[in-house]
Amino acid sequence: MIRPWPLAGSEQVFSAGLFRVTCDRARSPRTGEERNFHVIHMVDWLMVVPLTIDGGLVMVRQYRHGSRAASLEVPGGLHDAAGESAETGTARELAEETGYANGELVLLGDLRPQPALLSNTAHIYLAKGVQPVAGQEQDAGEDIEVVLIDRREIPARIARGEINNAMTLSALAMAHFAGHL
Amino acid sequence: MIRPWPLAGSEQVFSAGLFRVTCDRARSPRTGEERNFHVIHMVDWLMVVPLTIDGGLVMVRQYRHGSRAASLEVPGGLHDAAGESAETGTARELAEETGYANGELVLLGDLRPQPALLSNTAHIYLAKGVQPVAGQEQDAGEDIEVVLIDRREIPARIARGEINNAMTLSALAMAHFAGHL
Repeated sequence: MIRPWPLAGSEQVFSAGLFRVTCDRARSPRTGEERNFHVIHMVDWLMVVPLTIDGGLVMVRQYRHGSRAASLEVPGGLHDAAGESAETGTARELAEETGYANGELVLLGDLRPQPALLSNTAHIYLAKGVQPVAGQEQDAGEDIEVVLIDRREIPARIARGEINNAMTLSALAMAHFAGHL
Repeated sequence: MIRPWPLAGSEQVFSAGLFRVTCDRARSPRTGEERNFHVIHMVDWLMVVPLTIDGGLVMVRQYRHGSRAASLEVPGGLHDAAGESAETGTARELAEETGYANGELVLLGDLRPQPALLSNTAHIYLAKGVQPVAGQEQDAGEDIEVVLIDRREIPARIARGEINNAMTLSALAMAHFAGHL
């Protein structure tokens, strides 16, 4: 049985545009020793696996500033919990990034993106039967290409390293193991 | 075609135990506008999907300080590139965390844990035919329980939210889509 580590203190040590960092002091239930852990806090994330009626998976390719490379991903974004529900935000991100809409949105589940380092959660949706209804609406920080792939291509694209974003892979895993992919 | 954003500058703005943060200034190739992006840098990660001869998946449960909850995961750790090869480090982490060893180690591929936010890479291995050979060797920051599950339980454990760590889900996705799970 894994017991929680009682928290002895938490102090904010850095704050940037999208995240802040705390230094948390916690006590090991096994050794009694206290240790410091730096934790990154930011809003929750939204991700969606959009499927067309004829077996297409709607993905986006965009430049990512952490990896400094283009990344092939499922659509998603940040969840402004004060502004809208997770479902509304997911449908909005999907439409803005891809121009696809009108799907049936189903919550696949919630993930922890990196529970050792990040405190936030990602809400993962399936959108069944999406259709192209409009153009994209990109803000100045975005430069997004819509990529419609046959879902049977997913294993080969993973094997070739074309799909290598862990968040996208985990969303595809949730959709697959739930029987949708 | 997604073009790279030329980097106009990068400045370190924070440094903690395991990571440092830079503020990178990059220019959009679409609009020409410059924007700041905060990027988190740390060493690469190692993860391994360990399978026993009879279809068992060796997992670990441990308390995670980002989520402040116990997490059911595949074994892994940080890659000290100066100290050892990724393969040696993976075998060592597997043995220390679980007491299982003697498997055939195969590189499934490299992932980007979070390419918008993190600059690092995770090296994902399969270990085929592992056997229990010794006890665990935990350091003071660890409190790890070994959990041997039947791999046929994976979909149900994901559906119930018991496996909800995106890094673990992405490693399982790589193993599954490569035909090993």
